[in-house]
Amino acid sequence: MLFEASANWKKMDIDDLFWNRFRECVVKEGIPYQWKALNDLLPGDTAKSHCLRNFRIAAGKEEGSHQGWVFQDSDVYKWIEGVAFSLRWHPDPELEKLADGAIRTIADAQQKDGYLNTYYTIRGLEKRWTNLQDHHELYCAGHLIEAAAAYYQTTGKKTLLDVAIRFVEHIDSVIGPEPGKLHGYPGHPVIEMALIRLYGITKDEKHLRLAKYFIDQRGQSPLFFQEEAEKAGRECAWENGPLSWRYYQADAPVRQQMDAEGHAVRAVYLYSGMADAARETGDGQLADACRRLWDSIVRKRMYITGGIGSSEYGEAFTFDYDLPNDTAYSETCAAIGLVFFARRMLKLEKRGEYVDVMERALYNGVISGMQLDGKRFFYVNPLEVYPQACREDYNKRHVKPERQKWFGCACCPPNIIRLLSSLEDYICDTAGGTLYLYLYAGCTIHSELLSLKVQTQYPWNGDVNITIEEDAGKEAALALRIPGWCDTWSILLNGEPVSSTVSDGFLILTRNWKKGDQLQLHLDLRVRMMHASPSVREDAGKAALMRGPLVYCLEEADNGADLQTVRHGAQLNAEAVWEPDLLGGITALYTDGLKERVEDWGPSLYMEKHPEADPLRLKWIPYFAWANRDLGEMMVWVRDR
Amino acid sequence: MLFEASANWKKMDIDDLFWNRFRECVVKEGIPYQWKALNDLLPGDTAKSHCLRNFRIAAGKEEGSHQGWVFQDSDVYKWIEGVAFSLRWHPDPELEKLADGAIRTIADAQQKDGYLNTYYTIRGLEKRWTNLQDHHELYCAGHLIEAAAAYYQTTGKKTLLDVAIRFVEHIDSVIGPEPGKLHGYPGHPVIEMALIRLYGITKDEKHLRLAKYFIDQRGQSPLFFQEEAEKAGRECAWENGPLSWRYYQADAPVRQQMDAEGHAVRAVYLYSGMADAARETGDGQLADACRRLWDSIVRKRMYITGGIGSSEYGEAFTFDYDLPNDTAYSETCAAIGLVFFARRMLKLEKRGEYVDVMERALYNGVISGMQLDGKRFFYVNPLEVYPQACREDYNKRHVKPERQKWFGCACCPPNIIRLLSSLEDYICDTAGGTLYLYLYAGCTIHSELLSLKVQTQYPWNGDVNITIEEDAGKEAALALRIPGWCDTWSILLNGEPVSSTVSDGFLILTRNWKKGDQLQLHLDLRVRMMHASPSVREDAGKAALMRGPLVYCLEEADNGADLQTVRHGAQLNAEAVWEPDLLGGITALYTDGLKERVEDWGPSLYMEKHPEADPLRLKWIPYFAWANRDLGEMMVWVRDR
Repeated sequence: MLFEASANWKKMDIDDLFWNRFRECVVKEGIPYQWKALNDLLPGDTAKSHCLRNFRIAAGKEEGSHQGWVFQDSDVYKWIEGVAFSLRWHPDPELEKLADGAIRTIADAQQKDGYLNTYYTIRGLEKRWTNLQDHHELYCAGHLIEAAAAYYQTTGKKTLLDVAIRFVEHIDSVIGPEPGKLHGYPGHPVIEMALIRLYGITKDEKHLRLAKYFIDQRGQSPLFFQEEAEKAGRECAWENGPLSWRYYQADAPVRQQMDAEGHAVRAVYLYSGMADAARETGDGQLADACRRLWDSIVRKRMYITGGIGSSEYGEAFTFDYDLPNDTAYSETCAAIGLVFFARRMLKLEKRGEYVDVMERALYNGVISGMQLDGKRFFYVNPLEVYPQACREDYNKRHVKPERQKWFGCACCPPNIIRLLSSLEDYICDTAGGTLYLYLYAGCTIHSELLSLKVQTQYPWNGDVNITIEEDAGKEAALALRIPGWCDTWSILLNGEPVSSTVSDGFLILTRNWKKGDQLQLHLDLRVRMMHASPSVREDAGKAALMRGPLVYCLEEADNGADLQTVRHGAQLNAEAVWEPDLLGGITALYTDGLKERVEDWGPSLYMEKHPEADPLRLKWIPYFAWANRDLGEMMVWVRDR
Repeated sequence: MLFEASANWKKMDIDDLFWNRFRECVVKEGIPYQWKALNDLLPGDTAKSHCLRNFRIAAGKEEGSHQGWVFQDSDVYKWIEGVAFSLRWHPDPELEKLADGAIRTIADAQQKDGYLNTYYTIRGLEKRWTNLQDHHELYCAGHLIEAAAAYYQTTGKKTLLDVAIRFVEHIDSVIGPEPGKLHGYPGHPVIEMALIRLYGITKDEKHLRLAKYFIDQRGQSPLFFQEEAEKAGRECAWENGPLSWRYYQADAPVRQQMDAEGHAVRAVYLYSGMADAARETGDGQLADACRRLWDSIVRKRMYITGGIGSSEYGEAFTFDYDLPNDTAYSETCAAIGLVFFARRMLKLEKRGEYVDVMERALYNGVISGMQLDGKRFFYVNPLEVYPQACREDYNKRHVKPERQKWFGCACCPPNIIRLLSSLEDYICDTAGGTLYLYLYAGCTIHSELLSLKVQTQYPWNGDVNITIEEDAGKEAALALRIPGWCDTWSILLNGEPVSSTVSDGFLILTRNWKKGDQLQLHLDLRVRMMHASPSVREDAGKAALMRGPLVYCLEEADNGADLQTVRHGAQLNAEAVWEPDLLGGITALYTDGLKERVEDWGPSLYMEKHPEADPLRLKWIPYFAWANRDLGEMMVWVRDR
């Protein structure tokens, strides 16, 4: 096997208290369910995907019309990518056979000139490449490349990789700086990072060059999207709205962009490609642009859960510190994209902040997108929910108080699946003779530098035990992440204190490691009462609870209805209790609180008296686990004492 | 002159510190400006009204097409009504001449069969009465009747009254319970109360009967609107949305409606007509429905300003206790409609609560709709504004941080004008040998029972001096309203304590009044720190300040930016200061507060520390006067200590 990830690790097995259940959902629920969806095998009331039928029709093997979105092809590509990752740690010959069959169907639909998109193949190839702005041909190509790379790297099979490379050849013949070519770029980025991944396999400079072209051509004047629309006599729905070209991150060349703007998923996919390109080319100016956009997100435009894109309108970023809790959009895919971006910034430079944000998004805003049984999903991840408001307030119509089975636009469920099934790629890196441990999870890592075993019940418990299983016979550095949220920690080597330095979020231990060496890292997981910057209007006077990387929330199931009447007590008196039978096993928090009495307020809406409040021991659950019981209210930010 | 209001007063003159400036705006700015608008005489960048041109075209005196809204005719009717009221207290022969000319133009456009609506006359009479649901023919008829009644009652001129009566005859021949007639009712109520006003002049039972038919036919099964839409092959945009027929208050017969629902202006206009009908017919069941809908509004669905209709979607009521401050719709016209409804409930029964709400809406949510110079208007009246959010948050696109010159849908400005110009009709009532004083304003009132002079600087000052100017020579009762917000008051008669009873908000003094008798009523105007019911999510943990009937607010101009960082201090330490040079003369409030420091928070969005706060003496201005200085933030509900 030819793991691209081999730069990081040769072999890795995850066996982790926290992550096992999510990963089991992926192979037991997510991948089989999605296969049924792609093949229209789900029960009657579920929207038909038509995805694989579109490919068969495009290949001339079946009669019919194209159905589904203009980006429907990407669903099977994401599925194949998820399958490829899962086969690394959960071999399944039957599943691989299904994937091989899907790949043959895809290959059959490819045109002689390399073009591959069922929407245009079925509806008329003469119209292809006339709407880069909205018609997702390059987006689908990007996901094809990602799937092809992953499938090749896991299985060694080249069919899909060859399909992808031929399609890239075709794209390169149509789009580029040369006269006669389209001077365009995708309306929805993803192909940028996909091409750089492909370049990692092929080492074909053309692949890197095309990625860089897409990145740097974006937002150049004259604006390609504007010219394209004029040529076609189209109006752009966004152009005259408040987002305008920012929706597409095309309001300026990317190196001049100061703030994270527009459709949040597109933004972080773009920035991920930029970070990849900056790393591969050593382009310091592009790296600076990445750092600036990073700061814009994490310092001014990110929920405490790692959710981004606060507005349903355009699924977009709005403006600094505008982070409403009950109308939050905070799409699951956007949090996933932030994980992608953080991961790539970490490849660019080892700064603890990137891991902090990656972890924040992963443990909160990403996995909140999936029900604990893996059967239902959130597209939108609010931080405060009143079910009646979701039903009756038109401005909250996008906020669902319960996860849904599947979506017409099915981007989030397969995105969670491909992230969770590739969790190995987020845990560590090797660079410059150092093995960096980013995330703490039970696993064994075999890398070129060292092999080690990590045992932990993180994030429920702050003890991380690391055993060296194989040494390289020479000095090597081990960089253990000290989370930004952790102010008290300790480290023992073979039971003894050890000298170490901490640099930008990493505890670095350099020595001739011996097989059997044992490290005991302890991270203090005291409950933290968090406040938002006073610039965040919607969190003013409120506090949220965190323990380790986990954001907590109140649910009606534990604390009764009318959560707006709850506030923190004068003392927190926090207690963390492991509850094995609750929500599949979680650590709940208990704190002192007060709850105002609704029932004896009286008939007047407005009075001089204060509402009377009774003491209440509040019960908190991890945010990711909300909405797994009865329909009810939920709240992250609670009025401060 | 034949004042309909003669049931209440024979003659009244208002000369009042508070109201004079608003009423001057009406005659100096509002009426002349609106005349120019109706005649397309405003500078080029203002949208053309086309209103009077439509009438000339419909009369065949000019060539052209109908332009403007389907309810464009109502603009001139509302203008005439406002003019009629203003002529009662501000005679102006030139203005009366203009109104007479407009009336001739209107009369010329009436069809032989009595029909009068320029939209259908110009676009094709064959289509008239085919869309009662959305095409506002009955709405325009209602405003025609209101204008005709007011103009007749002020001037004695019958031209417009005759036009209105002929149109009603036509309507009665087309709509009603008899077979062959349309069993319909207006999509936008107003004709119900208009017909009862007309009945008050004509005593023609047909007018009352038609009003009752519109009221009771509404929402009956089979639903007229549904049948009408099916017949025309139309889809109703609202039917399949979350409001459905509630938008039109047509989801059930009105006597079965439990909550105030749907488009707020339509709702309170309907309820006003229902209250009128209940009074005129002694219909106790209908009166009960009015009381129930009243309670629904004032106990669960009304802002502290008297604003109603919290959602921009459908300009509608949402659900109990759903009163967001920063996305509030709270249309000026809806607050005006609530004044109408309260005034009519007061005619039905003398309960202090009706005056309390009437006063709350009038002094806050109504007059906030007009700039202090009378030149600009608010359609939407939020309770919290961040100008950047209005520009950049799509969900707040309806919230304007500055009043506008005029509107494409110009309902609110003329509605304010006709209310302020008829203020006399809201001040008192005579009933059962009692003269009720509802609102305290400097004025002289000549009624059948008594004549008296009221001298006061209310609401800036709580002293109200009343001098009997003329007695009836027999025992009479004077009922002085003791506001629900006032818990400390005193009354002296000719400088001596006097025995009195207080009944449902009224202090009743019964005696043989003598000319020269003097009453000194003192209402304590201490600053009140108000809390909302804990069921109101958006006001949880917040307090608002009131003094007398006035709601106060913070503005950026006085307290700096980032008002979300402000909170009330441990002690209120309130001080009320008359500031003659501020905003045309207002009483400002000063209280102890705290303001959190934004600047030294640091780069992290989320931290464990509390924001640091500095003491700040807060300065409050009356809510109605906000947005009369530089563009900036505003806030009513402020975090409580």
